[in-house]
Amino acid sequence: MRALLFHCKNYKTKVETLANRPKDIEPEEVNEKEQSCEDCVVALITVEKGDNIKKCCKGITEELTKMSQEVGHNNIVIVPFAHLSKKLADTTKGLEALNCIEETMNNGHRVMRAHFGSHKALLLDIYGHPGNARYREF
Amino acid sequence: MRALLFHCKNYKTKVETLANRPKDIEPEEVNEKEQSCEDCVVALITVEKGDNIKKCCKGITEELTKMSQEVGHNNIVIVPFAHLSKKLADTTKGLEALNCIEETMNNGHRVMRAHFGSHKALLLDIYGHPGNARYREF
Repeated sequence: MRALLFHCKNYKTKVETLANRPKDIEPEEVNEKEQSCEDCVVALITVEKGDNIKKCCKGITEELTKMSQEVGHNNIVIVPFAHLSKKLADTTKGLEALNCIEETMNNGHRVMRAHFGSHKALLLDIYGHPGNARYREF
Repeated sequence: MRALLFHCKNYKTKVETLANRPKDIEPEEVNEKEQSCEDCVVALITVEKGDNIKKCCKGITEELTKMSQEVGHNNIVIVPFAHLSKKLADTTKGLEALNCIEETMNNGHRVMRAHFGSHKALLLDIYGHPGNARYREF
């Protein structure tokens, strides 16, 4: 699992079209076409082939909790993101990992998750302080 | 070298403070505290230890040229970005690679490069079409 964490002043997304790649992709139902959040930690997350989901979920949720405490904002946005690695996990495993992260973070945070399996417009308005952007591998 | 390419409706950056990590960092002079660009391809670029600069430069500039043609916008923004890898190149090598990319792209594109060696606020307003975000390793 690879993740890029940003402390954002503003986050927005809008589902434009459903993805038809990689071959096995099964997009979720679109329940929420647009999302937005202010003052949040946004995590772009790529689940990879071979990931130990329990271990990765523990690692990323600890990082998110830490970063949320450090920046003093309780809003967490989880964005499924296919662009941090060349060896993506399949849909089932990807969703399993994302759900694990969402459920774990729900315990004590306000959590939003972006749609899985679509091409999305994305607005990231990132603060400029040290530690505003963090890259992690699990 | 790792790179994340986004087709952006809007890009902005503002240098907030100079970086003092990694240890060998030597920030450039700040000639332009703020930058902005509309309708552009923004490349977040991480130069890694062991990179063959000539080869990486060729690879990324070919990708940037291709993406620029596909999206129909001639503006290219090069952002030094320390957050796509754990094994960063040293300052000299990082700058050498970025300069190579900038000079190559200048041939036929309008190129902007963000400051090297600072904590920056960053606005990425990314279009939502297929191919809006691309991850590459060279």
